[in-house]
Amino acid sequence: MWKLYQFTLCPFSRKVRLALAEKGVAHDLVTALPWAPDEAFDALNHFGRTPVLHDAERKLTLVDSQAICEFLEETEDRTPLVLGTAVQRAEIRKLVALFDQGFFADVTHPLLHEKMKKRIVLRQAPDSGQLRQAMKLAHEHLEYIDWLVGTRRWLAGAQLSLADFAAAAQISVADYLGGIDWAGHEEAQGWYRVMKSRPSFRPLLAEKMDGIPPPRHYADVNS
Amino acid sequence: MWKLYQFTLCPFSRKVRLALAEKGVAHDLVTALPWAPDEAFDALNHFGRTPVLHDAERKLTLVDSQAICEFLEETEDRTPLVLGTAVQRAEIRKLVALFDQGFFADVTHPLLHEKMKKRIVLRQAPDSGQLRQAMKLAHEHLEYIDWLVGTRRWLAGAQLSLADFAAAAQISVADYLGGIDWAGHEEAQGWYRVMKSRPSFRPLLAEKMDGIPPPRHYADVNS
Ligand SMILES: N[C@@H](CCC(=O)N[C@@H](CS)C(=O)NCC(=O)O)C(=O)O
Ligand SMILES: N[C@@H](CCC(=O)N[C@@H](CS)C(=O)NCC(=O)O)C(=O)O
Repeated sequence: MWKLYQFTLCPFSRKVRLALAEKGVAHDLVTALPWAPDEAFDALNHFGRTPVLHDAERKLTLVDSQAICEFLEETEDRTPLVLGTAVQRAEIRKLVALFDQGFFADVTHPLLHEKMKKRIVLRQAPDSGQLRQAMKLAHEHLEYIDWLVGTRRWLAGAQLSLADFAAAAQISVADYLGGIDWAGHEEAQGWYRVMKSRPSFRPLLAEKMDGIPPPRHYADVNS
Repeated sequence: MWKLYQFTLCPFSRKVRLALAEKGVAHDLVTALPWAPDEAFDALNHFGRTPVLHDAERKLTLVDSQAICEFLEETEDRTPLVLGTAVQRAEIRKLVALFDQGFFADVTHPLLHEKMKKRIVLRQAPDSGQLRQAMKLAHEHLEYIDWLVGTRRWLAGAQLSLADFAAAAQISVADYLGGIDWAGHEEAQGWYRVMKSRPSFRPLLAEKMDGIPPPRHYADVNS
């Protein structure tokens, strides 16, 4: 049985959890906090980063959310998420990289640092300048999503793909941390409502991180 | 005909150039400097990052070095670089992510910032504390490569793969900028010498970035 080492506000873990759920792959969740020393977790990977997908019986350890998603894509037939022609697949992977790297660096990482790490690890107050900057950059990314869903059915084209899940995973963490303001982004908000109401998304929306309550609207699929 | 928008010290561009050369894919190089406004380049992609692979006749624009390499893998039969079983392919992609993200963030990016961007864009002196820290972290990455090549023929296993090219691309830029000290890393150095002497590597070693001379040993395949 697969064990996924992850924590609830890790957007890369969320991407993998969504892919596992969409593909119907059975797995157990194990909480691993990258900032807390944990022998079992550290023994699994040199990187100390979440997520890690591990199968003790088969002695398999998969590291990096994109390596994991590509593995699931190659080994599970159900619900292809990197689909279409080579060109369409390149478009999906480009957008996954944009959200995993660009949105994470601009928005999710600063919010996690200011609102999660400072609260529960460093015991410092958040820097309001950093928060403002992250929310400003969030607007630019939401504008790009408005444009994408204004021209296509889903983010990468006519089909639901890993690009939608990568983006929704980042946005859901940013939204949990109060960093998403939908004003002026009706198209993006409509798309995110649809993502939120998928059964694969439910468990994520129901979870809480100790000491960090989400805003009221966070788990509401109508807002 | 493919055009690759890139610049000589971009490690992600180097990874793609190595893959193109290994696979024998014809292409022209176009210099694009992400910090210099360039209408033709900006029109191609929302991200303003290099590399971008573009084919004007076929109206194809591929963005992100990993999306490009996966595309080449799917469309070119020659010299497979993401090869083997799904588990082996996951190992290759894990190591590519480690070098593209971890080594880049720890070593290549700070060196590029201190020694390239400050010299040719910001006109500032490099910060020696930052350089020392990057070189310290480089040692940890080289130690990991020592360990990998001590236990395997190539970085990801028995076969040469994209992991070797991703790692060598990052190291070659760090080495150009004087950030690599091989003392105590004989295994890693032996592996890098082999990479350097591949025909696909030659053009990279021959190029110079204006205003930033490489150290004497940089292009020497015996050192
Ligand atoms: N590219 C990796 C990124 C993983 C990552 O950065 N995870 C964060 C948690 S959200 C982490 O473990 N950070 C701790 C660290 O970098 O030391 C992936 O997609 O899995
Ligand atoms: N994940 C991207 C990273 C590309 C990247 O960061 N390129 C750098 C140059 S080495 C860049 O364009 N930086 C400018 C910027 O981020 O604005 C890839 O693999 O292509």
